[in-house]
Amino acid sequence: MNGIIVEAEIENIVDTVISDFDGDKTIDAVNIFNKPDKAEVTILVENLLRIIYPGYFRDRTYKIYNPNNSFAITIEDIFYHLNKQVTLALDFCKRRGTLTEESRAEESYRICKEFFSQIPKVREFIETDVLAAFDGDPAAGCFEEIILAYPGLFATTVYRIAHELYKLQVPVLPRLMTEYAHSQTGIDIHPGATIDKFFFIDHGTGIVIGETAVIGKNVKVYQGVTIGALSTRGGQKLSGKKRHPTICDNVTIYAGASILGGDTVIGENTVIGGNTFITRSIGANTVVSMKNLEMEYRTNNNELKTEEVVQSDEWYYII
Amino acid sequence: MNGIIVEAEIENIVDTVISDFDGDKTIDAVNIFNKPDKAEVTILVENLLRIIYPGYFRDRTYKIYNPNNSFAITIEDIFYHLNKQVTLALDFCKRRGTLTEESRAEESYRICKEFFSQIPKVREFIETDVLAAFDGDPAAGCFEEIILAYPGLFATTVYRIAHELYKLQVPVLPRLMTEYAHSQTGIDIHPGATIDKFFFIDHGTGIVIGETAVIGKNVKVYQGVTIGALSTRGGQKLSGKKRHPTICDNVTIYAGASILGGDTVIGENTVIGGNTFITRSIGANTVVSMKNLEMEYRTNNNELKTEEVVQSDEWYYII
Amino acid sequence: MNGIIVEAEIENIVDTVISDFDGDKTIDAVNIFNKPDKAEVTILVENLLRIIYPGYFRDRTYKIYNPNNSFAITIEDIFYHLNKQVTLALDFCKRRGTLTEESRAEESYRICKEFFSQIPKVREFIETDVLAAFDGDPAAGCFEEIILAYPGLFATTVYRIAHELYKLQVPVLPRLMTEYAHSQTGIDIHPGATIDKFFFIDHGTGIVIGETAVIGKNVKVYQGVTIGALSTRGGQKLSGKKRHPTICDNVTIYAGASILGGDTVIGENTVIGGNTFITRSIGANTVVSMKNLEMEYRTNNNELKTEEVVQSDEWYYII
Repeated sequence: MNGIIVEAEIENIVDTVISDFDGDKTIDAVNIFNKPDKAEVTILVENLLRIIYPGYFRDRTYKIYNPNNSFAITIEDIFYHLNKQVTLALDFCKRRGTLTEESRAEESYRICKEFFSQIPKVREFIETDVLAAFDGDPAAGCFEEIILAYPGLFATTVYRIAHELYKLQVPVLPRLMTEYAHSQTGIDIHPGATIDKFFFIDHGTGIVIGETAVIGKNVKVYQGVTIGALSTRGGQKLSGKKRHPTICDNVTIYAGASILGGDTVIGENTVIGGNTFITRSIGANTVVSMKNLEMEYRTNNNELKTEEVVQSDEWYYII
Repeated sequence: MNGIIVEAEIENIVDTVISDFDGDKTIDAVNIFNKPDKAEVTILVENLLRIIYPGYFRDRTYKIYNPNNSFAITIEDIFYHLNKQVTLALDFCKRRGTLTEESRAEESYRICKEFFSQIPKVREFIETDVLAAFDGDPAAGCFEEIILAYPGLFATTVYRIAHELYKLQVPVLPRLMTEYAHSQTGIDIHPGATIDKFFFIDHGTGIVIGETAVIGKNVKVYQGVTIGALSTRGGQKLSGKKRHPTICDNVTIYAGASILGGDTVIGENTVIGGNTFITRSIGANTVVSMKNLEMEYRTNNNELKTEEVVQSDEWYYII
Repeated sequence: MNGIIVEAEIENIVDTVISDFDGDKTIDAVNIFNKPDKAEVTILVENLLRIIYPGYFRDRTYKIYNPNNSFAITIEDIFYHLNKQVTLALDFCKRRGTLTEESRAEESYRICKEFFSQIPKVREFIETDVLAAFDGDPAAGCFEEIILAYPGLFATTVYRIAHELYKLQVPVLPRLMTEYAHSQTGIDIHPGATIDKFFFIDHGTGIVIGETAVIGKNVKVYQGVTIGALSTRGGQKLSGKKRHPTICDNVTIYAGASILGGDTVIGENTVIGGNTFITRSIGANTVVSMKNLEMEYRTNNNELKTEEVVQSDEWYYII
C-alpha cells in the first residue's frame, strides 16, 4: 500500500473519531481525566492488603531488612494516593459542586486521617473472618492458605475497607474498590452493606449483597446467594431507602438461595436451604428448605418414572 | 546438592518436556506464535476504552496538555496493533487458507478502516447504555460511577466493539475480546449476539447470552440469567443456525431466569420473573413467574410446617 | 496545611497502624514474607501455559529464532521459581514443622523433578480436553480459538497442573493455582478433585467442583453446576473424608444443576437436566429432569393463567 495514502487515511480516521468527542454525550468527559482513576484504586487496594495482612503480601520494589520501614513507606504511599483520589472523588455524585477546590483538599485530608484511624478496627473484624473461614471449611489446610487463596476473604476484606470510606461519604471510590473485588471473585458486596464479625463466604461466585443489607455476627454464605431487593420499578426514587434484608446472628445461607426485600428479617440461628426463595421474614431457630422437588427419570427404553426426592436431614445443605 | 548433577538433571527435564512437543498434537502449535495474541488483545480493549469514553481512562505514558494529541496517538496505536492482530487472525478458523499473505494484509487494512468508521455509531449505542444503567439502578450515584465501576457496562461495551469485528468476519479476535470481559465480569456475551440500544445489566455475574440471540431496545437483565440454546447434541452441525431466543423491546429478565431455544420469542414489555425457566414463546405485556414455590419450615422441636409462599405483587423481582 | 503538622500527623498514623501489628493475630505473619507468594504463583501458572501449549502464549522478553531455546529458558525459569515456592510451602498446613530447612530443600527438589516428569502426561490429558471442547460447542470456530479464548479449558488446564502438586502433597500452592483460575473464570475446581480425559466445561461461570469429587471420561459440565458436599456441620472433622459425588463416564450435566454428597454416584451415559437437585445416586443411561415447573402468566388486564410448562424432549438442556 502507498505510504502517503495510508498516512492520509489514518489521519482521516483520527479526525472522524476525535470529531465525535463533542462533549454533548455523557460518555465524553468534560473535565478530562480529572476524576477518580480505576487503575490507581486497584493499586490502592493491593497496597492496603499489605497493611491489613502484614507479612503476607510482598512489596516487590525493595529488599527488606526491617519490615517496619517497609510498612511505613507503604502507609505513607497509601495516604498520599488515597488523599489524591478522595480529593478528586469529592466533586462527584452527591458531592458535586458542594465544595470549593480548597475545601475539598481539606475535607479529603480529614477523611483520610479518619480512615486510617479505623484500620485497627477493620483488622479486628477481618481477624474474626479468618477464624470463621477456618472453622467453616474442612478443605482449609491452614490460616495462611485462607489468607493467600480464599476469594471470600478477599471480597470481605475489600468490602470492609470500602465500607469505611462509604461511611465517610466518599463518592465513587468505595464502589470502585468493591467492583475490583467483584471482578476478581464474582462476589458483589455493595460498600453500603453492614456486616458484623465472623463473616464467612465459601466459593462465592455469583453472590450479590445489596446496599442496605444488614448482616449479623457469625453468618455463613455460599455461592450464588442473592441478598437483594425486590424491584427497581421505583428506580432512582428508591435511592437511600432500605431495600435489602436483615440477617440476624448465626444464620447460614446455602448455595443459590435468594433472600429479598427491605422488610425481610431472618431470625437468629436459622438455616436457609439451597435454592430457596425467601421474600418474607423467617423466625429464629428455623430450617427452611424447598418442598416438592419432583424429578423425572427416563431410561433408554423410554419408560418414565416420576418420584419426589426423598429428603434426607441434610439435603438442603449445598456447599 | 551437587551442582553438576543438578545441571544434568535439569537438562534432562528440559529435554523430556521439549521432546514431547512433537507437533502431532493440537496443543502443539505448528506455526509458533504466528497467531492472535491474547495479551495484545487485552491491551487493545483497554486502549479502545480510552477512545470510547474519552477522558475517563488515562494513558499513563504521557503528561497531557492537549487531550486531542493524546487521543490521536491512542487511535494510531490501536490501528497499528489491531491491523497486526487482524492480519494474523485472518488465517484462522473459517478463513484458514482462503487468502494469500499479501491479500490478508490488504483485507485486514480494509477491515480496520471499516471498524474505525463504526466507532461513532458504537459510541452512540453505548451512550444509551449508560443512560439505561442510571435509570435502572437506585444505587447508582452518578454517570461517572457507572462508567468507571459498573461491570455490566464494561461487558456491554466490549461486546459492542467485538460485535463490529464479528460482523466483519474476523476470526478469533472478537471472542478473545468478549472472553476478556467475561474474565473481568463473569458476564459471557457472545460477540455474535445482536443487542439494540439502552441495554442494562445489573450485577451480572453468571449471565450467558448466546451467539444467535437477538435483543431489542431497553432490555434489562440481572445476574445469573441465561439466554441460551436448548441442546448441543447436534454439536458442530448446528454451527450457524439460530439456536438462541429473541427478546423484544422493553423486556425485563430478573435474576436466575433461563430463556432457551432458537424459536423462543419474548414479546414487548413482558417481565420474566426470577428463577423461571422458559422454553417457548411468551406474548407481549405479560408477567411470568414461578408458581407453587412450596417450602418447609422446621423449628427446633422438629415440628414441620409446609406452606406455599404467599406471592406479593413483586415477589418475582429478584435484583 | 502546615507541612510540619502534616508530617507529624502522618507519623502518628504510621505509628498507630504499625503498633497494631503485635503478632497476636492470625493476620499478623510471624515469619514476614517467608511464605508462598500469590503473585509468583500467578506468574508460574502463566509460564506453565507456555510449555503446556507451546507456541500459543508468547514470552515477551526475547525475539525468538529457535523456539527450543525459548522453551528451555522457560522450563529452567519455572523449575527455579517452582522449587523456591515449594520449599516455602513445605512448612505450611499439614507439613508445618515436619521437616528441617535442609530437608525441605531436598524434598522440594525431588517434588519438582517428579512434577516435571508428569508434564507429558498432563499434556496428553489436556489434548483430549481441547478435542472435547471442539466436539461439544457449535460456536467453536477452530482449535486455536478454544486454546486462546475458552475459560473452561483454562480452568481445566490449571486444575490439571495443580492436581499434580496436590498429589505430591505440596501445601497451599495447588489451591493458589486453582484460585487464580477461579478469579479469571468463575470456575472453582478444587485441586484435589480427580477428573479423567475429555473433560468439557462450557461458559463455566459459577461452577464448583469439590475436593473429593471423582469425574470419569468424556463428561460435560455447563455454567452454574455444583458438584458439592451436603453439609459442613462437621467442619474440620470432615477433612479427608469423601464428601463429594462420583460422576461416571459420558455424563452430561446441564446448567445450574446441583449434585451433592459423597455417596452420590451418577451412572454412565446419564444426562442431568438443568436446575435439577440431586442428592442420591442415579443409575446408568438415565435422563433426569425437573418436573412440575408450573408458572404463572399475568397480562395487563390482570387475568391470571397458570400452566404447567409443556416439556419438549429437550427442555432440560440449558446450555
